[in-house]
Amino acid sequence: MNVRDVGEFGLIRRLIQKVQERRGGPDNASPSGIRLLVDAGDDTAAWRVGDVIELFTTDTVVEGVHFTEETVSWLDLGWKIMAANVSDIAAMGGVPLYALVTLGLPPETGLSSLDDLYEGILALGNDYGVRILGGDVVRSPVTFVTISLTGLNDGALLMRSAARPGDRLAVTGYLGSSAGGLELLKHACKTSEEVAECLRQAHRRPRPCVNQGRILSREDVKAAIDVSDGLLDDLGKLCEASGVAARVERDAVPIHPALKEVFPQKYLEFALGGGEDYQLLFAAAPSVIERVVPMLTPSATVIGDVVEGPPGKVTLLGPGGEEVPGPQGGWDHFG
Amino acid sequence: MNVRDVGEFGLIRRLIQKVQERRGGPDNASPSGIRLLVDAGDDTAAWRVGDVIELFTTDTVVEGVHFTEETVSWLDLGWKIMAANVSDIAAMGGVPLYALVTLGLPPETGLSSLDDLYEGILALGNDYGVRILGGDVVRSPVTFVTISLTGLNDGALLMRSAARPGDRLAVTGYLGSSAGGLELLKHACKTSEEVAECLRQAHRRPRPCVNQGRILSREDVKAAIDVSDGLLDDLGKLCEASGVAARVERDAVPIHPALKEVFPQKYLEFALGGGEDYQLLFAAAPSVIERVVPMLTPSATVIGDVVEGPPGKVTLLGPGGEEVPGPQGGWDHFG
Repeated sequence: MNVRDVGEFGLIRRLIQKVQERRGGPDNASPSGIRLLVDAGDDTAAWRVGDVIELFTTDTVVEGVHFTEETVSWLDLGWKIMAANVSDIAAMGGVPLYALVTLGLPPETGLSSLDDLYEGILALGNDYGVRILGGDVVRSPVTFVTISLTGLNDGALLMRSAARPGDRLAVTGYLGSSAGGLELLKHACKTSEEVAECLRQAHRRPRPCVNQGRILSREDVKAAIDVSDGLLDDLGKLCEASGVAARVERDAVPIHPALKEVFPQKYLEFALGGGEDYQLLFAAAPSVIERVVPMLTPSATVIGDVVEGPPGKVTLLGPGGEEVPGPQGGWDHFG
Repeated sequence: MNVRDVGEFGLIRRLIQKVQERRGGPDNASPSGIRLLVDAGDDTAAWRVGDVIELFTTDTVVEGVHFTEETVSWLDLGWKIMAANVSDIAAMGGVPLYALVTLGLPPETGLSSLDDLYEGILALGNDYGVRILGGDVVRSPVTFVTISLTGLNDGALLMRSAARPGDRLAVTGYLGSSAGGLELLKHACKTSEEVAECLRQAHRRPRPCVNQGRILSREDVKAAIDVSDGLLDDLGKLCEASGVAARVERDAVPIHPALKEVFPQKYLEFALGGGEDYQLLFAAAPSVIERVVPMLTPSATVIGDVVEGPPGKVTLLGPGGEEVPGPQGGWDHFG
């Protein structure tokens, strides 16, 4: 058996199980009064130290797997890897704080490329109050960038495991724009430059929903995840962690007019299965959803319900409430 | 100009400078009362939150660069990458706490290999009280492992920048054994199995000096670094950060009898330039050194002095106090 056989999420489950079975030894946190709040399996880990809740996450991109020099500039790459990390903090209702940056680099990497990479990392990081405190540089035959990021939460964590039957589901912003932008970067397409640029920017310069996450956390929403691997995929993870199922009204999924215009045949596939939108998907009681959705700018949209059912099962509903098939969803790194 | 032209440490200096010039944006730490104590450039970053000082570090290994399957088993690899991270915490006088593990893996990686890798990570981690809280797995054409680790310090940080002229220099344990062990793993050599195994174990299963670091911190030592890249190299970094120079008495450098026996021609080269020993090199006033060295088990040895001089300059002294040439020192990832 190898990694491809079990896939990314089978592998993650296996590793989490192994760690939880086998870990032991002294608990260095106890004498300091640090209390672990969120273990492996959510968007970030979390612990309480004094009056503060700290968050801890990491995310990596590898050349040829997550990006190619053809579709992503060094500047965009820096922006995107920092954005992916900040989005995990946003999905817990937190703000980002301290980062370590690890670069795996071929020796022939140009210094001007690295300058651009750091411009991107710093541009996104500065916008969101991230402070870089160091990292590691290593030689590697393939370029990779890993960021480890801490964050802070002021008391109400958004958890993948907190969705309950009867909750309504909603999502910030638009979905599928990043996948549409990537498609445009790979294959030129007849469309106005303005429309194309709107989608390309969604792919190249995603903006994590930190402010929205803080509003959700303050307004009593308990369950959220960021949409990094595709709506149906990430909703499946939220439901699995919560032990619930979900129904999504296909025609309620928010799709930007530009995406519909450029990809009249494929926009739904992009919106349901495309990754890297970094919007927040959240669940709460109907009264909470009704109050919080209008507070979220630029927008948020109710897209379905949490129901009892096989944990992780997501059903897509057509306009008459009938079950309809979804696209082949999600991004499996080893698939 | 590319990365090879400036080398690993030129690149690190360049990146630290860029970050310090360009970073800005809100300081998310301020409202929470978190205070940054150690920025980029030491063994770890550090900040104070309430009564607690937290440490933050990361370290990466890449196949074909830091290890090959011929000389390092998956189990050893897991042990060693966790040891490298824990050693950074030890060098600040701290204890390790929470870890995130990132794996870059070719899809054909066997699950049993990963089981072994995690056995090694957990074996070292459990011994030192590390709790793994998740991480990331990504596809990669080349195997790499990145660990990000937090730690705790109870009030007295060991800093690279705190050595002062007049301090004496000392080091824990023996130096060069890991480099000797690696040489034995690459080239068989006529020697008793017991002696060979002693050196191979030093390479395959290094033990970070967490207890020793805590003693140093408690006993008023202010300056330390872990020996990961070679004695002369790491001493140079300590001196550069402190704005001082150093003199090392070559014949005082502690060398295990097994290393002298197996490599009668090369033991000095290994002891002065070989990496991955993960001992602690420290500097303090003579009275402090006199008190603390006997407290350290299994051993610690005085090897020289801190002096005024060009920052980072390390001079090697022969038996009559005359200057002698050192080996070509240090490990440059891009050299």
